[in-house]
Amino acid sequence: MPVVRMELAYDGTDFHGFARQPGLRTVQGALEEALHHVVHVPVTTTAAGRTDAGVHARGQVVSFLIPGGFDQERLLRSLNGMLAPRIAVKDVSEAPDEFDARFSAHWRAYRYHILNSSFGDPLRRAFSWHVPEPLDMEAMNSAAAHLIGEHDFAAFCRKKAGNSTVRRVLESRWHRSDDLVVFSVRASSFCHQMVRSLVGLMADVGRGRRAPEETVSVLAGGDRQRAGQLAPPHGLILWEVGYES
Amino acid sequence: MPVVRMELAYDGTDFHGFARQPGLRTVQGALEEALHHVVHVPVTTTAAGRTDAGVHARGQVVSFLIPGGFDQERLLRSLNGMLAPRIAVKDVSEAPDEFDARFSAHWRAYRYHILNSSFGDPLRRAFSWHVPEPLDMEAMNSAAAHLIGEHDFAAFCRKKAGNSTVRRVLESRWHRSDDLVVFSVRASSFCHQMVRSLVGLMADVGRGRRAPEETVSVLAGGDRQRAGQLAPPHGLILWEVGYES
Repeated sequence: MPVVRMELAYDGTDFHGFARQPGLRTVQGALEEALHHVVHVPVTTTAAGRTDAGVHARGQVVSFLIPGGFDQERLLRSLNGMLAPRIAVKDVSEAPDEFDARFSAHWRAYRYHILNSSFGDPLRRAFSWHVPEPLDMEAMNSAAAHLIGEHDFAAFCRKKAGNSTVRRVLESRWHRSDDLVVFSVRASSFCHQMVRSLVGLMADVGRGRRAPEETVSVLAGGDRQRAGQLAPPHGLILWEVGYES
Repeated sequence: MPVVRMELAYDGTDFHGFARQPGLRTVQGALEEALHHVVHVPVTTTAAGRTDAGVHARGQVVSFLIPGGFDQERLLRSLNGMLAPRIAVKDVSEAPDEFDARFSAHWRAYRYHILNSSFGDPLRRAFSWHVPEPLDMEAMNSAAAHLIGEHDFAAFCRKKAGNSTVRRVLESRWHRSDDLVVFSVRASSFCHQMVRSLVGLMADVGRGRRAPEETVSVLAGGDRQRAGQLAPPHGLILWEVGYES
């Protein structure tokens, strides 16, 4: 049975997240239903990142086994025909037998978009969080720099009992392009709600409500209450997943 | 009675165009209803460009008279509170007595976005027309250059009997940024469906189905049948309106 690797983009607005849930419209549910239709057997997919309700993807990667050979071009066209316009299959290829979209991934990269203007922008509202107060980029980047390296992110994780919350952050920085303020973060992996929790804290730092160094003490304390509010899901995009080439 | 000038952005997806229509959700209808609520008397607005159903705006300008004085900051906040998130009021100011958003405008600028990639992009589908075939930018720019100057655009206008279809085009060019192909056009004014009709023809030029010089013969012929298909509304954005400063 060949292992198929697939790259996806989706608009998460109208989905109850990536992961299949009975009776709810999810990305995985829609994808597996379409795959079933094309290959005529039930297919179970594994994803690099299980995005929450309302979170988008530009470069989600999934893998699955299908029986017998397959025509990449035909699979690509059939799936896009069924999944458009909210989900797009950007690429399909046969992967080595041991490939698993989740366990083979070396890193995940997310971007978080803040629209930093007095009033919201109707043309960008679906993919950015509107924050009207002025944001201090230097303070936010100082906070972001404290996250790089291996830390226990318990204070920023919605916990599942028994799971480690230690993660290695490889990149963490903010940049501004006009009124768009973007957080780029890359890590070995992320625990549940980690990016939105970090953005929530750093947005408070940017607004001058908290000091950049609080990132360090909140990390060290491991107390979720101190991390503050979650940033809303619609500003978050799973940007890219890295594998050994 | 002071004349108020207002700048608006809107996501046209869910509106039946700008112009008020009984029983339908329109931008003008929503705006005048909100204004009525704030100033306690019915208000009639005039717009620089009456965009069609599904067309968006980044810099629409409207004007209206209101009785007595008004607090700009309060008006801005009240209206945004009522109109968000699909409509945003970007600016409110008092204008000279003779100001009229429509008749005082020197030019209107529109942009049309084509997403030129094999498959659609879920994150950009609301504001671009997806054209999968490769587009020849040089041919499209050659066609676009023929439009500059004063011409009778009858072939590209949905006609209203008796109205002139002569327009002066000041700027008309295409540029590509990755997979986004953008048409920037500026003119004294535009007749109904003119930009979408021009884009429809030039997209055919870009796909190699028609020669760039056909722009000239279609213009000269004045026959709407020869202009070809209209580009869809959701790629079009009323970008900016120019007034004497």
